[in-house]
Amino acid sequence: MAKQEKYAITPTREEDYPQWYQQVIKAADLAENSPVRGCMVIKPWGYAIWENIVRNLDHLFKETGVKNAYFPLFIPLSFLEKEAEHVEGFAKECAVVTHHKLEKGPEGGLVPAGQLAEPLIVRPTSETIIGDSFSKWIQSYRDLPVLINQWANVVRWEMRTRLFLRTSEFLWQEGHTAHATREEAIERTKMMLDVYARFAEDYLALPVIKGRKSTAERFPGAEDTMCIEAMMQDRKALQAGTSHFLGQNFAKGSDIKFQTADEKESYAWTTSWGVSTRLIGGLIMTHGDDDGIIVPPRLAPSHVVLMPIIKKVDDTSKILEFTESLARELRETDYHGMKISVEIDNRDVGSRGWDWIKKGIPLRVEIGPRDLADNSVFVGRRDKSHRDKTSVKRDAFIQLVPEMLDDIQKNIYEKALSYRKQHTTPINEKDEFYRYFTPENLDKPEIHGGFAMSHWCGDSECEEKIKNDLSVTIRCIPIDSKKEAGKCLCCGKPSGHRVVFAKSY
Amino acid sequence: MAKQEKYAITPTREEDYPQWYQQVIKAADLAENSPVRGCMVIKPWGYAIWENIVRNLDHLFKETGVKNAYFPLFIPLSFLEKEAEHVEGFAKECAVVTHHKLEKGPEGGLVPAGQLAEPLIVRPTSETIIGDSFSKWIQSYRDLPVLINQWANVVRWEMRTRLFLRTSEFLWQEGHTAHATREEAIERTKMMLDVYARFAEDYLALPVIKGRKSTAERFPGAEDTMCIEAMMQDRKALQAGTSHFLGQNFAKGSDIKFQTADEKESYAWTTSWGVSTRLIGGLIMTHGDDDGIIVPPRLAPSHVVLMPIIKKVDDTSKILEFTESLARELRETDYHGMKISVEIDNRDVGSRGWDWIKKGIPLRVEIGPRDLADNSVFVGRRDKSHRDKTSVKRDAFIQLVPEMLDDIQKNIYEKALSYRKQHTTPINEKDEFYRYFTPENLDKPEIHGGFAMSHWCGDSECEEKIKNDLSVTIRCIPIDSKKEAGKCLCCGKPSGHRVVFAKSY
Repeated sequence: MAKQEKYAITPTREEDYPQWYQQVIKAADLAENSPVRGCMVIKPWGYAIWENIVRNLDHLFKETGVKNAYFPLFIPLSFLEKEAEHVEGFAKECAVVTHHKLEKGPEGGLVPAGQLAEPLIVRPTSETIIGDSFSKWIQSYRDLPVLINQWANVVRWEMRTRLFLRTSEFLWQEGHTAHATREEAIERTKMMLDVYARFAEDYLALPVIKGRKSTAERFPGAEDTMCIEAMMQDRKALQAGTSHFLGQNFAKGSDIKFQTADEKESYAWTTSWGVSTRLIGGLIMTHGDDDGIIVPPRLAPSHVVLMPIIKKVDDTSKILEFTESLARELRETDYHGMKISVEIDNRDVGSRGWDWIKKGIPLRVEIGPRDLADNSVFVGRRDKSHRDKTSVKRDAFIQLVPEMLDDIQKNIYEKALSYRKQHTTPINEKDEFYRYFTPENLDKPEIHGGFAMSHWCGDSECEEKIKNDLSVTIRCIPIDSKKEAGKCLCCGKPSGHRVVFAKSY
Repeated sequence: MAKQEKYAITPTREEDYPQWYQQVIKAADLAENSPVRGCMVIKPWGYAIWENIVRNLDHLFKETGVKNAYFPLFIPLSFLEKEAEHVEGFAKECAVVTHHKLEKGPEGGLVPAGQLAEPLIVRPTSETIIGDSFSKWIQSYRDLPVLINQWANVVRWEMRTRLFLRTSEFLWQEGHTAHATREEAIERTKMMLDVYARFAEDYLALPVIKGRKSTAERFPGAEDTMCIEAMMQDRKALQAGTSHFLGQNFAKGSDIKFQTADEKESYAWTTSWGVSTRLIGGLIMTHGDDDGIIVPPRLAPSHVVLMPIIKKVDDTSKILEFTESLARELRETDYHGMKISVEIDNRDVGSRGWDWIKKGIPLRVEIGPRDLADNSVFVGRRDKSHRDKTSVKRDAFIQLVPEMLDDIQKNIYEKALSYRKQHTTPINEKDEFYRYFTPENLDKPEIHGGFAMSHWCGDSECEEKIKNDLSVTIRCIPIDSKKEAGKCLCCGKPSGHRVVFAKSY
């Protein structure tokens, strides 16, 4: 039976996962590659999802006392050199501005002119330029904490790019805070990780594992990097957000000093934390099926599409009237502090229903002559089969919509959680581990493995060997991992707890 | 009496207007210069005003069917060359990316490496890169209109910068639309100008004159540039928004072609329109007084500050309780589709009241023991003298707040309108015109002139002569200017209507 099924997306996830991903984005009209190497164009449906991510996450930030600000796009080269590890991490992949105008060249075309005395780097992240401001804003313990967030574009030159997951320019937020004590900064690092986890689970419907990175996987210059990791449907991990405790490293680099309550001079303790348009990639790869994306209702640009079905010209005005009045009432219906957002699709094209399935809109409503006669609507849910549609009385439907949306939200979260559980395995033996991460069928190398919960001694050499052999990395040391005596998967030395090993994006 | 008055800002507007402007920004903590040439740091209070501009304006755009999207920060050099006038307009002042990494140089520091085959320009405006997308999106008349807006940062290298008014990097929105007919594109150009005018008047409380630019002042590559112009308190004009009818110029440059309903091939007709963080400069210079800025209530980050006054330790808990409960009720009070935003300032510092005056918060509320006993609050309005405070019963105050805010909004608009009327003069004679724009007192060269409504023959030579002699330009040819026979101020040739001459930002 399943073999006879036709799907909207070719190839299917099982046939070719990376190609499926590209095709889903195209089918939903989310984004496209641009003529500028590695940069993407985010199209209206994709950008509207981002706008909803921004609005909701911004609200969660502000609830914790964070305020937004904006800092320069450009970072003087000398700033990047302020923190040694940071230089290593970011110098290799950045856009460098060297000139400030264009002139007619000898061959008639335009050529760069007006060379800058000091090159400027297009921000890959803003610790150093924001640190410069902090050093001016912070004089006394009374000025602390400083809790700032910036919504911005950043650039990290990438050779191999993939829409939303890895692009040279991407949109993100970067939070930067400064505190009087180490403890308070660590608390903030954890608090923002919790905000990310809550956002991922409640809005993106993305089950995540909270944990910390190994030394090798840390943010360049951080003392501690905490993260949330999610499993995609090819069983790879996606790092969905990071929160860094920077110790006093950046404060020393940027000279962020303050006078303490007992009149001593101290460097501030800083944090930074960020999520990006990559979350949209995570959303696609977690919830998408072979008919396209499924947008979590809490982040959907529109919740319901109404599709009038006109079979006889005589019906036209009645059906359109019914549709319009339904839309009006729905648009006044509350849903988590906002109103239900409704599309009306009047187009007379055969692909109409499928277009909306591919766009992942939560609810599709058909309104034909029979529905009109019965004062009802014909409703399809995106989390169910496209053939699974039910007739619901008009007024009951209006009342039910918020509930149905919540049910879809819950449903896709639970499906993702169960998928992750199904593909998370404790592995104690090296052989088994290597088999787990080796494709059985080399024709379909993409889907295999999962999250291996294995013991690790804490040594970077073991970590690196596994990375080199299998392209498998330690995604995180889970915060809630239980103490358990065991032996390192790689070298056999003692280990106190299991960590998450996986392939990753 | 006025001479004895002390003001929070030194110098006052009359003493030194440009310095007053800088000091007001500093006193309100809106923004500051950054270590990167010409770029600014927008601080939380300033950025919150921008966020409110974005939210409200975005809503007005969406009501007209516009959707948001995002396009690359970088524009390939060859794209900028696609439209001849456009090149001339923007090539002179742009940030050029020539390399994509950094390497250790011979002296140990980092130097640019990885030279790009084609330099990239950091967008000064996005007509050409968005045009490239449009050329792919638009095939048939059925694909039209395309109505897109982008909120983004742009860079135009500036030698002399002034916070908000002229910075190398600034934040803005740029709308870009494509249409099947000339008429429809012109209609959209006007529609968006109307949106800007409405936003300026209803939200910024900025009276504006709608008009068109002369050929010399047009956007490079446009067929027609429409604008809104406002008068600042130094009587200079500020261009607060522009809407361009681009004809088929950019469509030809970017190859935006479509098949018409009768199966012919045609180039699309495009428009573009934008406003920027410069609006915040306009807001400051229109409403600010010698005590600092006055934020229009519709755009205020917070509407009310509550300042408990604790004189005896015993009162503390009662007064704080009263304050908290007042804040709670205010935060549930509706104001134009949102809720009243409240700050509580518990600081025990003498400058507290003045800090909020300088920040321009619409309402200041003091709550002391006497107010508590009387179940009332002591209220100051930012649009009135700082000494002009009145006692209002607590419950009455809560009910009154939305009304008081609307009254402030109306009041500052009318004050600005009356100022503009007072300094707008019909001038027919050249001598008078030259005197009008020449400072009487060379010690105070900043405040003089105003809007001169004068006849102009339409000739660029006359326009240029006046510009060279006086730095006075034609701000716009007002849309509602009446037909009136007259003589060109400069050459005496016949003219059919008056235009607005002024010095400008």
